[in-house]
Amino acid sequence: MSWIDVTYHLRCEAGEAAARARAIAIEQSIEMPPEAVARPEILADTLGQVEAVETLGADLHAIRLRLATGTIGADAGQLLNMLFGNSSLHDDLTLVDADLPAGSKRALGGGPRAGLAGLRARVDAGARALTASALKPQGLPPEELARLAHAFALGGIDYVKDDHGLAQQGFSPFHRRVPACAAAVRRATAATGHPTRYVPSLSGSLDAVREQLRILREEGLDTAMVAPAILGLSNVQQLVREHEGVAFLAHPSLAGAARIAPPLLAKLWRLVGLDAVIFPNHGGRFGYSSETCRQIAAAALAPSGGIAAALPVPAGGMSLARVPEILDFYGNEAMLLIGGSLLAEGERLSQATAAFVDQVHRHARTESHA
Amino acid sequence: MSWIDVTYHLRCEAGEAAARARAIAIEQSIEMPPEAVARPEILADTLGQVEAVETLGADLHAIRLRLATGTIGADAGQLLNMLFGNSSLHDDLTLVDADLPAGSKRALGGGPRAGLAGLRARVDAGARALTASALKPQGLPPEELARLAHAFALGGIDYVKDDHGLAQQGFSPFHRRVPACAAAVRRATAATGHPTRYVPSLSGSLDAVREQLRILREEGLDTAMVAPAILGLSNVQQLVREHEGVAFLAHPSLAGAARIAPPLLAKLWRLVGLDAVIFPNHGGRFGYSSETCRQIAAAALAPSGGIAAALPVPAGGMSLARVPEILDFYGNEAMLLIGGSLLAEGERLSQATAAFVDQVHRHARTESHA
Repeated sequence: MSWIDVTYHLRCEAGEAAARARAIAIEQSIEMPPEAVARPEILADTLGQVEAVETLGADLHAIRLRLATGTIGADAGQLLNMLFGNSSLHDDLTLVDADLPAGSKRALGGGPRAGLAGLRARVDAGARALTASALKPQGLPPEELARLAHAFALGGIDYVKDDHGLAQQGFSPFHRRVPACAAAVRRATAATGHPTRYVPSLSGSLDAVREQLRILREEGLDTAMVAPAILGLSNVQQLVREHEGVAFLAHPSLAGAARIAPPLLAKLWRLVGLDAVIFPNHGGRFGYSSETCRQIAAAALAPSGGIAAALPVPAGGMSLARVPEILDFYGNEAMLLIGGSLLAEGERLSQATAAFVDQVHRHARTESHA
Repeated sequence: MSWIDVTYHLRCEAGEAAARARAIAIEQSIEMPPEAVARPEILADTLGQVEAVETLGADLHAIRLRLATGTIGADAGQLLNMLFGNSSLHDDLTLVDADLPAGSKRALGGGPRAGLAGLRARVDAGARALTASALKPQGLPPEELARLAHAFALGGIDYVKDDHGLAQQGFSPFHRRVPACAAAVRRATAATGHPTRYVPSLSGSLDAVREQLRILREEGLDTAMVAPAILGLSNVQQLVREHEGVAFLAHPSLAGAARIAPPLLAKLWRLVGLDAVIFPNHGGRFGYSSETCRQIAAAALAPSGGIAAALPVPAGGMSLARVPEILDFYGNEAMLLIGGSLLAEGERLSQATAAFVDQVHRHARTESHA
């Protein structure tokens, strides 16, 4: 038997915590009264076990359970189902962490193929931090998005991605948007010599996403973005398996924040093979604390039994003025994603991008001389 | 142009509510500063609009937005992305409701094919409430699960479903479990004359689920269960489209409760064509209020521009003693799902099931004479 160590945070009165812990262990495993289970081996091998209940303060308790890996197998959707399926319906409970044994890690995906190192190599970045931006707003036709992609690439950016809101809309369907933007970036990279990558956003069913990946490969692209909380983690797992040469960035859309700890999501997304994890940086337009951001970056990067590092991508309402501070915070093992405040430069987009790129490159040189 | 009316609940100080509402309207549409958008038609046709900000009390505000249907198209995953994608990362914000225009409703799925009426017809139930139970615990081999299915069916139950935790585990893989349980239910229905339906739980990627549906059809089954929050709503939409004869029950696993209002999820799941919505009944082992449960049932049943009603399925820690009260609460347009407390009867499972079934049938007769 092997087990997953799972941690939840529960808000309830101290006198109720132990009973609630037992109830969660049942809910996330056999889901029926243990006394009604006739087979003793199910109570030993399948029933979740309460390892510890610790008081964290006032009405907050850390609950540590062991869940049997035998209930999960190799499917990442089933992993989520057993970690938090029914228990997500309790609004006083948060899923905080999960430590999987090595065998489960391998079975569930074994981590990124490209990851931090591969995403750096794609753009000849050496050991510096990476730069990225986004194509928006929604409503622009393909040729306008392509014009923006061209300007970003002329500025020497590393990755330029579709806004996660770009999908299969009438104003810019995938099969018109992606060839237009890919061609624009090819033209720019021929001029700059820098291998800027265009990253289309994938959306829809697994079938739809596969067709989008076909177009992406046809255009000579090798990097794509998915939103695992919308596509479903089992489908992400399948995509990663069958597209070996493609690096995948994970977008946090619909991933919530209040119920599953963001660093755990980063850890699970890395585990199934996503190469980069986008998340809202502290001090931007989302409420993540600097501590949460530090933990997300650590979940992407920390050594984990031979699993490759994923690339942390802080984003969301960042300005050029903050670049040095952000680089000081994350160091060079990160990609800075700045969208709106570059796009606000209008006709000066390439120059503003070049200034962003230059700041990041210079910071790397300063670091290496320090 | 057509628009979706969306309602959020936001916890913040009264002085901040209007600015937050504008920020959410931007986040869920163009996602960049409006002043940096050069094309006036994007501000008119694509930018989300704040319709109203109402104070609900203390620090709670209702925000009503209009989001352009043009940003969504016909994909249900993209609908979730635009309703709550990035904004789900704000832990003070809840998505409460969304009203779609008729054209979007049709494009996104148009609702159940079987629905309440079809699920009643499958089991010759007339206008009474339906009965259901679940096969568990995890860890049982296929032949033991089949024995339980046989006992439930002998008791005359309408639907017997896999526990949502049953997936592709070594102890009971789908391709062995489903034929065994289907055969057991066939044997029982030959004896009882009541057309009990066995409902396998689908899991994994869209590919895996399709293969499971192939086995399901091969066994002559016509009803299946999915967890839309795990499989992904775009994939559910695709499954529904391509499996016309199959009725789908929606399981709430991983659907949370604190961030997207459960009645809205019921409404969206019905919209894409799911035929029944399982949810935790009030007073069981989950914290849903009776008012939330009433709203979920209403979201499944309420007239909605020609869209068929879905079947409300209250579940979760219900006992036989509560059956009359539950029937009084939901009336006959519901399916009562009782699992653990029937399974706890052990060797008396068929008799306990028959007593449950009898209670529901008698209640319907009393109602019709009232």
